[in-house]
Order: sequence, then C-alpha cells, then structure tokens
Amino acid sequence: MVKENEVPGRLEWRVNMPNGSSRILAPESRETCSRLQSLVMGIVLNIKGFLDKAWNLAVNEPKKVVHCLKVGLALSLVSVFYYMRPLYDGVGGNAMWAVMTVVVVFEYTVGSTLYKCVNRAIGTCLAGSLGIGVHWVASQAGDKFEPVILQVSVFLLAAAATFSRFIPTIKARFDYGAMIFILTFSLVSVSGYRVDKLVELAHERVSTIAIGASICIFITMILCPVWAGTELHHLISNNLEKLADSLEGYAAENFSVDGSKNVHEKDSSKRLQGYKCVLNSKAAEESMANFARWEPAHGKFNFRHPWKQYLKIGASMRSCAYCIETLHGGINSNTETPEFLKKPLNDVCMRLGTSSSKVLKEMSSMIKTMKKSTKLDILVDEMNSSVEGLQNSLKIFPSYQHIPTPDPATEETPNGTEEPSLKPTALSLMEIVQMATLTSLLVEIASRIEGIVEEVKELASQAEFRDESSKKSKQTQTEINGNDGNEHEVTVKTLQQV
Amino acid sequence: MVKENEVPGRLEWRVNMPNGSSRILAPESRETCSRLQSLVMGIVLNIKGFLDKAWNLAVNEPKKVVHCLKVGLALSLVSVFYYMRPLYDGVGGNAMWAVMTVVVVFEYTVGSTLYKCVNRAIGTCLAGSLGIGVHWVASQAGDKFEPVILQVSVFLLAAAATFSRFIPTIKARFDYGAMIFILTFSLVSVSGYRVDKLVELAHERVSTIAIGASICIFITMILCPVWAGTELHHLISNNLEKLADSLEGYAAENFSVDGSKNVHEKDSSKRLQGYKCVLNSKAAEESMANFARWEPAHGKFNFRHPWKQYLKIGASMRSCAYCIETLHGGINSNTETPEFLKKPLNDVCMRLGTSSSKVLKEMSSMIKTMKKSTKLDILVDEMNSSVEGLQNSLKIFPSYQHIPTPDPATEETPNGTEEPSLKPTALSLMEIVQMATLTSLLVEIASRIEGIVEEVKELASQAEFRDESSKKSKQTQTEINGNDGNEHEVTVKTLQQV
Repeated sequence: MVKENEVPGRLEWRVNMPNGSSRILAPESRETCSRLQSLVMGIVLNIKGFLDKAWNLAVNEPKKVVHCLKVGLALSLVSVFYYMRPLYDGVGGNAMWAVMTVVVVFEYTVGSTLYKCVNRAIGTCLAGSLGIGVHWVASQAGDKFEPVILQVSVFLLAAAATFSRFIPTIKARFDYGAMIFILTFSLVSVSGYRVDKLVELAHERVSTIAIGASICIFITMILCPVWAGTELHHLISNNLEKLADSLEGYAAENFSVDGSKNVHEKDSSKRLQGYKCVLNSKAAEESMANFARWEPAHGKFNFRHPWKQYLKIGASMRSCAYCIETLHGGINSNTETPEFLKKPLNDVCMRLGTSSSKVLKEMSSMIKTMKKSTKLDILVDEMNSSVEGLQNSLKIFPSYQHIPTPDPATEETPNGTEEPSLKPTALSLMEIVQMATLTSLLVEIASRIEGIVEEVKELASQAEFRDESSKKSKQTQTEINGNDGNEHEVTVKTLQQV
Repeated sequence: MVKENEVPGRLEWRVNMPNGSSRILAPESRETCSRLQSLVMGIVLNIKGFLDKAWNLAVNEPKKVVHCLKVGLALSLVSVFYYMRPLYDGVGGNAMWAVMTVVVVFEYTVGSTLYKCVNRAIGTCLAGSLGIGVHWVASQAGDKFEPVILQVSVFLLAAAATFSRFIPTIKARFDYGAMIFILTFSLVSVSGYRVDKLVELAHERVSTIAIGASICIFITMILCPVWAGTELHHLISNNLEKLADSLEGYAAENFSVDGSKNVHEKDSSKRLQGYKCVLNSKAAEESMANFARWEPAHGKFNFRHPWKQYLKIGASMRSCAYCIETLHGGINSNTETPEFLKKPLNDVCMRLGTSSSKVLKEMSSMIKTMKKSTKLDILVDEMNSSVEGLQNSLKIFPSYQHIPTPDPATEETPNGTEEPSLKPTALSLMEIVQMATLTSLLVEIASRIEGIVEEVKELASQAEFRDESSKKSKQTQTEINGNDGNEHEVTVKTLQQV
C-alpha cells in the first residue's frame, strides 16, 4: 500500500519552522488547515456572491445608484452648515436637525420625499404650537400641577395620535406626520420644563428642518428625479404588456400549428410567467399611487392626474391574471385530452388568444403614449367576434365526434389528411372536460379584459389623453371601410405599420 | 296663486332685529343661511362619520387601543428622566434621545419593536465607532485635509449604506439599521468637527438610547404583548378557514338539493367572499414573518419556530384562492347550463366541495391547536375518492344525454319522477362547457389543496406539533377498522364527536 505522502507528483503541505527548516504537515494539521481553508473559501464565496448580486442590481437599475449618490450629495451639502462659520452661527448647534431631516426624509421617489417633508412640517408646527400652549397652561397652574398637566397631556395626545395612525385614511396620508407630531410634542412639552426658552428653540428647529427639507426637495427634483407617478404609469403599462405576453405565449404553446414552439425555451418560459408580476404588484401600486398624489405636475402628468384610476386598472388586471394563472395551472394537469379533439378547436382558440393579447398590447401602448387609440375598439370587436366564433364552433360541435379510423376499406377524400375516413363515436364527458375548461377560461379572460378596457377608457377620459393624429386614424378608417371582407388582416397591417 | 310665505302651517325663517322686533328673512338671505347651514351640517356629519368609524375600529380591535395606551405610558415613563433631577443629572441634556427612541422604536408587535431596537443599537454602535475612527484619521491629516476627508467619507458611506438598503436580504432585516447608520455616522463625523468630546457624547447617546429601548421592550413584552408570530399563526389558520367557508358556501349555493340556500343572505355572501382576504394577505404575511423571527420563545412557539414555512403555506393557499376566484367569477357568467344536465353531477360536485372544505377546516384546526391530526389523511383520502367519483361519473356520462321528453305516448316507469320517459339527444359542446369547467375547476382546487396539505404537514414536522391524544386517535382507528364497509359515515361521525 502506497502511503499518501509518497504519491509521486502530489503537492505537499509544508510549513516553515522557526529554525529555518520546513516540515511536512501531518494529516491532522492538514485536516484543520483544509477545514479552515474551506471555511475561509466559503466566506469569500459568500461575499463574492453577495457582491455579484449587488453589482447586478446596480447595473440593472442605475437609477438606484444615482439615488445613492444623491443622498451622499444632500448630506455633504447639509454638513456645509457645520463647516462654514457664518452659517453655523446663524442656525446654532441645532444644525443636527438639518442632518437628521435629510437622512430621514430623503426617499427614492419625489412623491415620497415630498410626502415626508410636508408631513414633517405639518407635524412639527402643529405639535410645536400645541406643546407651547400646553406648557403655558401648565405654567399658570403652579409648580405642583405643572408636571402632572404635562405628563397627562403627553400621555393623552400620544395615545390619540398613535390611534389615529390605525385609521386607514390617516395612515395613507399622514402616518409619518402623526409620528412626528408625537415626537415633537413630547420633546417640547418635556424639555420646556427645563429650558424655558421654548419659542426660540422652536424657531431654530423649524428653520433647520426647513433647510434640510429644502435641500432634499431641491436635489430630489432637479437631479435625475424619480417620479412615483411616472413609475406607476410605467408599471401599469408594463404589466399590461406582460399579461399580453403570457396569454400570447400560452396560445402559441398550446394551439399553434406551425413551429412557434421553436422560440427560445428560457425566454418563452420567462414571458409565460409574466402574469405573476401582475399578481404580486398590488402593494407597489398602492404605495406609488399614494405618493404620486403629492407630486407637482411633471412630464405629461398634471397635478390632479387621476392616479386612483390606475389602481382600478391594476385591480381589474389582477382579476384577469387570476384566470390566466388558473389557465397556466391547467397545463400541468394530467387530464389527457385526445389530440383529435383538440385540433378542430385549436384555430378558434388561437385566434381568441391572439386577439385578446392584441387588445392588452394596444392598451399598454395607449397608456405608454397617452394617446387615445382608434384601434382599440376595432381590436375589442375583433376579440368579441373571436369569442363568438369560439362559441359558435362549440355550438355546432356535436358531442359525438367523428374520429379517424384506420379502416382501410373507407374512401379517401381528395383533401388527404384534412378529411380522413370518419366514424361517429360518442365521447365521454371526461374526454371533453379539459378542452371545455380551456375554452371557457379563454372566454372568461376575454370578458375580464373588457373590464380592463373600460377602466383604461375611463382613465383616458379622466386624464384627457390626446386623440391620435387625425391623419393616421383617417387612414386606418378608410382602409377598413374599403376592405370590409378582409377587416382582420387590414387591422393587423395597420398595427404593424404604426 | 298662493305666495310662498303665506302657505298655512309652514315654518317661517325669522331673525331678531336690534330694536326688539323680528323680521321674516328674505329668500336671498335664507338661501345664504341654508347654504351655510348645509355646509356646517356637512362638516359635522363628516366628523361624526369619521368618529363613528374610529369608534368601530376601537371596539372591534381593543388590542390597538391597548397599544395606544402603551405608547402613552412609555412616553410618560421616559419623561420621568426629565423630571427627576438625579436621573437628569446622570444622563444629561441628551435625554431627548431617549424620548426620540421611544417614539421611533415603539411598534405594534413585539417583533417589530425588537427589530427596531436591535437595528438601532447595531447601527448606532457601528456608525459611532466608525465615525470616531474616521474623525481620528482626519484629525491626523491636518487642518487643510480634515474637512475634505470628513466630507468624502460622509458622501461615500452614506451612498454605500443607502445602496445596501436596496439589496433584498439587507432590506428585509437591516433596513432601519442602515438608516440609523447613516444618521449616526453623519452626526458623529460632522459634529466631531466642532465638539471634540466625541467619546463622551457617544457614551451619553448610547446610554440614553439604551434607556429608551429597554423601556419600550419592557412595556411591549409585559403589558398585553402582541406577538407578530402569534398574529401570523392566527392569520394563516383563519385564512384556511375562510377558504373552506368560501368553498363550502359556493357548493351549498350551487349544488345543494335541499334548502341550504335559506341561510342568511348577507352572512353567506360575506362568507363566500372570504377567499378575497387570502388573495390580499401576501404583504401582511411577509412583514409578520419578517418580524416574528426577532421574537424570543413565547406561548407555544420556540425561538426557531419555522416562520418561513407559514409563507409557503400562504403561497399555496393563494394559488388555491386564484382557482376559487375563477370559480366564483364563473357564477356571474351568462353561459346557461341546462338544469337537467346539472342535476346528475350535482351530488358528486357537492360531495367534492364539502370534502375539500373539510380538509381545509381540519388543517385550520390543526394549526390552531398545534396538534398533528390523525383525521387529516382520512379526509384527504375522502377528498381524493370524491375526485375519483367525479371523474368516474364523467367517464360513464355519455355526451349524448337522455333528456325527459313531454311525449305522452311513452311508458311510465314505476319510479315516477326518478326515471321519466327518456330519449337520447346529442348535446352541443356549448351546453356542456360550463358544467365541465366547473368540475375541472373543482378537481384543480382539490389538487391545489393537496399542495397546501403537504406544506402544512411540513410545518407540523418542522415545528414538532404534538400528536393527538393517543386515546382519541385509537378510538377513531378502531371505529374505522371495525366498520370497513361504512368508512365514510364513521369518519364523519367521529369528526362531529371530536
């Protein structure tokens, strides 16, 4: 048996001894060494993985990196108040409040920064004046009752303000303000007991907060501003597109006759999963809509842009996504549908899937461009006629099916495979069930898409979307009117041109 | 024509004049008056409505009122440090930090309070020591470079810490800590430029924060504690029950033969809508699970209770809820199913709906009591056999239906209405489609419920749920073994007894 450390060509573990010689490491120490090494390697790999992820995040969302730099800049600016003596003497030692305001108030979107600034201002002023008032009342009551009155008022107002944070309407708009109210009121009424120069203190605090808040607002609105409203707008429009992709992908995967399946596997599965984003975006939508209403007019949006309508669109989109989820869940079910049964309905299902996804895409581009679409109604009509087509073919479909038989004695029709020898056979409900579910889910999805269409139209009228340039719409109209028999193709062509 | 102010029995609007007489108000002033009155009434009504809502909130969730009182108490306690001179002299003028800590850190659940306390402590210590270090380095570099080094370090560290808040793993656990890090580091490195007694300052700040935090932790854990873990536990168990109710209610409304429809309309519609809570509870579940892991052992939960498993149960519950939503959406669809087609399948559908909802209820009570259930497997088997029963009856169902004909010439069978005169008629797919969708959705729901069962079993093994008392389980087992032929009824009976 060859000993381990005698294997030729094998690297040896040697350590340098204090006397200058070197020694081969014994197996035990080697084990400890390798364990240590693997531990260190593990930590290094972990850190590397973490840094890789962070790097990817930074590369994929440069906006977030810009935000970080903006925070750094705001803090550097505010600390100038400490370094420059004249300013320092002006705002006094309370410049700390300016630093604190910047750290606490500076948020990712303009809307949330404004929300916090306004809340902080209102909360501070309200609580400050109330605190001074209570303090005055307490000071009139004599030394004995002063601490009692102050304590009781702190207890009652803190409890009341905390309770108000549980009320949904206040929570949505003034949660932060209520917290600042409690903070300021406690500080004022409590410190008033000692300091006795409350008004001066309040003035100093308000001015430093104003400095911090204005630096935040200035930087957040001037340097690469991230508007909550714009983000919400893009989110909704992207989600519509993702829904369309999911639906189109599903149709291509299940009903296509040609080689549409040969698209990139990974890419298509990612597109198929798009509806999941819609399922999970409720919280994001709500917080963005909440912040968006604090934002001034920007880009294409007025101050009173109907942000709430986006939430309605989001809700109807989710209701549609539930159906799509059920549809996708059905793919993995092991109820077998005989191929011969699927074939005849494939065409109508494919058409419905495609036309539904076109409606979704049109709405997405309508929101993206903020232009009213003349094509939307046409596409909805097309979708509805696809639904009717599907329902009609279901109606004319008898539930006993002509299935091809391998009987060699039957006559061959000239169409070859199109019309092979047929023989009526009764189907059990079991064999029909999957196809039936699929079709009725598609119909349900189409009807829920109509719900989205209504909400989007409501948005278009509330936000006064511009009309599409009259030239283009006229062109489309003429083409359609002139080609009644070929309406579907023309619409598609127009779509591709525009 | 009778003048308005002459109408008999009509109340007159009179105002008292300065000379003692009174005058009937002219229509214009009356209008102004009534407009003012309606404005005031509107405001009063608004305030009344708001107060009513707040009162209802308080009555329905007394825990929240208790929380408010706890906040008041904590603030009163902390302000004692201002009023009692010996303590005041000990912690100095920095007692403000204790008040601030209480206001900012005191949250509704124990978990979130602990999360904030720990984050505040870590953030403050880390940033404080780093700040002092940077300040020392800067002071060695000479007067010229000192502000530059401090500015650059604030800029870089603030940007880096802000970026870290975008990384999901850090955001989930240390979001607040990162903010406190930025705050403390800026304050220390900036104020260090002036104050020059940094270590003392840091010591004071840390001790006041410790006082505030320990008051918060003490009050939140001793007085009626609200544990995030317990809340999550109840949420999941209640949601399972709501799903069960929705499913049961749907089955009762659509498949019941007897008068189950006669239950309270309002009550039943509320129960039917229960699944919507499940659809919308993702964010709540995640934040609770996030806070729950900060909590020490409490009640029936260990420190390392598998809170993450609850999220998995929640996810599989939502996937089931999507299906139920689609099912409920189908109720309102106007595709008509002929009654004669529905009837034969009603029994099997009813049985499947009831057995599925029983499985959900059993899981709910299993989680509630934290005991392993011997009945769960039996109920799952029952549900699966209902699925098989449904599939079998679909298989034997031919798709041409024997429908009763009003032909008077046909023979009457002895069973009367049970077997009326029948005539085979081919159905179009259209007529089958709704029933088929319904059944396959029910089957899909059953298969998704099995997914929930697996997750719940995983939870039971991870959290080491106790076995049900051996006596009871033995009793059930014997009854089942002794009555093989009548297994179903016995199980139901045992269920009702236990």
